[in-house]
Amino acid sequence: MALRDTHVTMAHGGGGRAMRDLIAEVFTDVFQPPGHEDQARLMVDALQKPGARLAFTTDSFVVSPLEFRGGDIGKLAVCGTVNDLAVGGARPLWLSAAFIIEEGCEIAMLRRIVATMDAEARAAGVTIVTGDTKVVERGAADGVFITTSGVGVIAPGVDLGAAHLRAGDAIIVNGPLGDHGATIMAARGDFALQSTLASDCAALHGVMSAAMQAAPDIRAARDCTRGGLASALNELASDAKLGMVLDEAVLPLRDEVRGLCEILGLDPLYLANEGRLVCFTPPEQAEAVVTALQTLPEGQGACVIGHVTDAHPGQVRMQTLFGGARIVDMLIGDQLPRIC
Amino acid sequence: MALRDTHVTMAHGGGGRAMRDLIAEVFTDVFQPPGHEDQARLMVDALQKPGARLAFTTDSFVVSPLEFRGGDIGKLAVCGTVNDLAVGGARPLWLSAAFIIEEGCEIAMLRRIVATMDAEARAAGVTIVTGDTKVVERGAADGVFITTSGVGVIAPGVDLGAAHLRAGDAIIVNGPLGDHGATIMAARGDFALQSTLASDCAALHGVMSAAMQAAPDIRAARDCTRGGLASALNELASDAKLGMVLDEAVLPLRDEVRGLCEILGLDPLYLANEGRLVCFTPPEQAEAVVTALQTLPEGQGACVIGHVTDAHPGQVRMQTLFGGARIVDMLIGDQLPRIC
Repeated sequence: MALRDTHVTMAHGGGGRAMRDLIAEVFTDVFQPPGHEDQARLMVDALQKPGARLAFTTDSFVVSPLEFRGGDIGKLAVCGTVNDLAVGGARPLWLSAAFIIEEGCEIAMLRRIVATMDAEARAAGVTIVTGDTKVVERGAADGVFITTSGVGVIAPGVDLGAAHLRAGDAIIVNGPLGDHGATIMAARGDFALQSTLASDCAALHGVMSAAMQAAPDIRAARDCTRGGLASALNELASDAKLGMVLDEAVLPLRDEVRGLCEILGLDPLYLANEGRLVCFTPPEQAEAVVTALQTLPEGQGACVIGHVTDAHPGQVRMQTLFGGARIVDMLIGDQLPRIC
Repeated sequence: MALRDTHVTMAHGGGGRAMRDLIAEVFTDVFQPPGHEDQARLMVDALQKPGARLAFTTDSFVVSPLEFRGGDIGKLAVCGTVNDLAVGGARPLWLSAAFIIEEGCEIAMLRRIVATMDAEARAAGVTIVTGDTKVVERGAADGVFITTSGVGVIAPGVDLGAAHLRAGDAIIVNGPLGDHGATIMAARGDFALQSTLASDCAALHGVMSAAMQAAPDIRAARDCTRGGLASALNELASDAKLGMVLDEAVLPLRDEVRGLCEILGLDPLYLANEGRLVCFTPPEQAEAVVTALQTLPEGQGACVIGHVTDAHPGQVRMQTLFGGARIVDMLIGDQLPRIC
């Protein structure tokens, strides 16, 4: 125990002994990366199968506040990158974690964040194998920013993507929409809102693998993070040159999220999620997927919310409760900053 | 050309159309990552050889100022991660790049940084295959922070590391020390110093591959970044439980760096480098390495600066110009913040 400080100082970023102590006691003692070198060196049996591909992804996390009901920035950082790998059909294997820490950051909070990351990584079956820390002066960052990158393996024959979408495909989500965005909004000082909502933040590797098993012809999947379901669908519609039709009557929304959106004049379709994905299957395989997902804690609320069409390429439309139809456009501007 | 803004706004981080335009026009049009999905999917022939290993590393860059003589934060972000892979004996293949951008950041500057990254990546033979952007409010970050992660392949039979060091091994550097640290120091408003110094920032994959070819029994290598040569040697000495002896008379230092250190009371052994590595070879293979490196632009100033000893395990000592010896300890505290 060489680290006696309670808060991070500039010396913890200087490349010397203080940095070594911080890294050892707060980070590597918990993550226990393999080896002592500054890089992880990994054997990859799974990659040696002919046709296997490596998946590689990265995300920075700048959420404010750093801790919120249902998670913290560390949970987001692990689940976000695990999910980016999973929705592409990859089995997540390794993560890197790079921390940009503001001078004055409380070390006890860093330890809590690191403990969350460690627990989430173990639960998702991934290892945090390498990392970095930088310290910037007070006011040059906001508490802590975390960037994770992930490496996974896509098994031979697995090929998910917008290009595989077909008219008629079912659109499936794994649970209620907008919980994360609504939780962060309620947690901000900006709005004096009381709420029992919790973030949906969760690793979705299990959901994806269940969906892939239940639907051999699964077409594509996306996690609905920043910009929400609407942005994910618009991107896919644009890439696939196909349209999408949502059925408002079946959209899974908690009453609290609906209420918060009504008060604030927001559309829940654009609220961020951190444990929700949308996936696409041939219509005849949709029920099997929904049934399979409903057996998982992260998929309890799974349901079909619409279908793919060739009637209005590139456009997402919603059949409203009143029998009309409205266009669900790409988000213009910014609904809520620093959501992830 | 949908992007008409000259400065980044919060909308550019919101997950909607503004973000998509920024990413397309500033980032992906330049980097041209493979595929349209949110993850890179890569075939890895080199990993299919029995015994090959994957190398994986990450670093955040928070240098201030963002642009300086000899480089910018983008050059650091590419070279730093390429070098982390290279000094471990890996062939660098792919990079990810995650940007945390402060609201108000000039888009023209972002374009310059991205152009540098693209040029450096091409020169180093790596591809920037995936990325992320986040925007935080004015004052919540300082301009732009970049986190790169790197994936490379370690060929079968290659195994560098501190554990392979032996007493008698030669200690070799590839050129003058401290140029990067001195350049950043001179560029800061804090000191009213005029200087023609430029950062040594460079990708060292060529230097490493020349060293590995010239010395079949090369033991280990490290890049001398934050904390300088002294910190790199102390870490290796501690890990290897061996001592190191440096010869002050042969240490390569530019007169300007020496002068700046004298004025400011700094030790050049602790100054950061971004294009310097230290490597260790059996004594009889050292000359071949030095000769090979000197043929390369990044290795012109290569020389032997000392040797490994079992006389004082874990300790780095320097034979001074005056015939004495002093201990070169691990850096305590912080010599210069935000150097990389």
